[in-house]
Amino acid sequence: MRRKVLVNAGEEWPDDLIAELSEHAEVIKYGTATVEDLRDAEVLVTFYLSPDDLKLMHNLKFIQVLSAGVDHLNWSVIPEDVMVCTNAGSNAEPVAEHAMALLLASAKRIAFYNSRCKSGDFSRPVRTALLKGSTLTVLGLGPIGLKVAEHAKSMGMKVRGYVRRPKSYPSVDEVFLHPDVAGALRGADACVVALPLNKHTRGLVDYEALSSMKRNGILVNVARGPIVVKEDLMRFLNENPDFVYATDVWWNTQDLSKDWDVALLPNVISTPWVAGAFGNPAVFGEMVRFALLNVLRYLRGEEALNRVDRSDYL
Amino acid sequence: MRRKVLVNAGEEWPDDLIAELSEHAEVIKYGTATVEDLRDAEVLVTFYLSPDDLKLMHNLKFIQVLSAGVDHLNWSVIPEDVMVCTNAGSNAEPVAEHAMALLLASAKRIAFYNSRCKSGDFSRPVRTALLKGSTLTVLGLGPIGLKVAEHAKSMGMKVRGYVRRPKSYPSVDEVFLHPDVAGALRGADACVVALPLNKHTRGLVDYEALSSMKRNGILVNVARGPIVVKEDLMRFLNENPDFVYATDVWWNTQDLSKDWDVALLPNVISTPWVAGAFGNPAVFGEMVRFALLNVLRYLRGEEALNRVDRSDYL
Repeated sequence: MRRKVLVNAGEEWPDDLIAELSEHAEVIKYGTATVEDLRDAEVLVTFYLSPDDLKLMHNLKFIQVLSAGVDHLNWSVIPEDVMVCTNAGSNAEPVAEHAMALLLASAKRIAFYNSRCKSGDFSRPVRTALLKGSTLTVLGLGPIGLKVAEHAKSMGMKVRGYVRRPKSYPSVDEVFLHPDVAGALRGADACVVALPLNKHTRGLVDYEALSSMKRNGILVNVARGPIVVKEDLMRFLNENPDFVYATDVWWNTQDLSKDWDVALLPNVISTPWVAGAFGNPAVFGEMVRFALLNVLRYLRGEEALNRVDRSDYL
Repeated sequence: MRRKVLVNAGEEWPDDLIAELSEHAEVIKYGTATVEDLRDAEVLVTFYLSPDDLKLMHNLKFIQVLSAGVDHLNWSVIPEDVMVCTNAGSNAEPVAEHAMALLLASAKRIAFYNSRCKSGDFSRPVRTALLKGSTLTVLGLGPIGLKVAEHAKSMGMKVRGYVRRPKSYPSVDEVFLHPDVAGALRGADACVVALPLNKHTRGLVDYEALSSMKRNGILVNVARGPIVVKEDLMRFLNENPDFVYATDVWWNTQDLSKDWDVALLPNVISTPWVAGAFGNPAVFGEMVRFALLNVLRYLRGEEALNRVDRSDYL
């Protein structure tokens, strides 16, 4: 029997890569898969899992997720012997650019002054901050965090990193180890959260961590909402009106409007989870290619990238 | 008689540099200057000129302006034999950062989405743009334009420059010569205006120049309003709703609210002339130091930087 790969990526279908994959396996669009295809499938490429379909997939050995994060997966329905890989790095460029946009917009008070100019008020009650020479802590040095560190370094910022397993990072001046997040943030002018959400990072940025930053600091989140403790953040923002929280991500991912209480705070600027592929077909196409290249590695018997340690999520 | 230097920089008074200057001349705060001081002064350091005071300054040989631009000076009251130097480069870092903030905020729709989130609407009707791989034209490669080119290059943009007198620029992929502004802008995704306002640049960005950019392009202005033809811009923005004008500078510099008609357009994001020193004492202090170092060069008989060719302004 030929190996089968199910791809759940909507209309996206890069013919050249599919042809390469087809040398090793039959590649089937998820939407056209029969019950037999589900039973036979060795590989599944997808954003989300259907628990019902998964029950049928007795031959499944490899799940390639299309998103960089895998915190949304229901791990209890994934058999332990199925390898799961994230798509980390596939959209690092747009997300890192979005982080820089939120950081710069906060420092230069773009949203604040733009709405005032639109209302006809051209006065200048608050000053803007200079990034050059200031200190940025990047929480997480995966592909997104590393890109942010590079951009920040090239703008003359002092860059700190925060990781669990340190490597050598040319763009990072000082590396702090998990769980010393308060140390990594001590006296920092700005912080970009670029961590995966898992049991090590959930609630990592709490009141104590926030308090170790400068009172007029900027916290940028392009990772996941629950890495920051919502109640602690709201208390800290209320107590420190010069501190800014700039976020693209939220706590209630099924209904962002449930986090309206945070968006409404005067020292919050926000976007509705658009940093990644959202709405940009070129970026989404790149994410699918990135994922399929990893499937190709797997089918050829090479080592797949971004393999998840499921104990991080259980 | 001792040479006299008048410094009109408010409270700013960098003791170390003043001590160095004092080896060559008596340094006097403008606010405490007597009529005799005005008559004797060889050097004037200032933002603005007082025509009445200037009439008394029979010994004046050198005016060091504190701003990067000198378009606000009344050249008709400055004797031809008085050397005038700009302070170009003194606040290039904050202005270039502000340009990047406006560019990124436009590409990532920060102001648009932020106001929607604040109103409780977390839907995502427009897509964001990727800077990496897109083309940026920088009009003017003085200290600000060069910094912008460096930042953009390090973010993976293709960078074009536009100058009157070309040099070699490591961060610029292609250099266009004045007056081929339409060529420099042809097919560009974004443009940052970083030119001085003078007779060569007034009205340079007109309807034809705008039309040569992409229809969903971004025009950032951190230089001076009148480099862009206001009526042409408004027509172009009305005709091209996906094009964004992101500006810190205005046409009516005495009363920015007279340009409210532009700020109000849905495809305009703006700040009220805050990119430079405004409100940031560290930046202003740096500008004063930069200017006084040039005065020191002059007093020592060395060549002063940023000497203005007055024919550019007359």
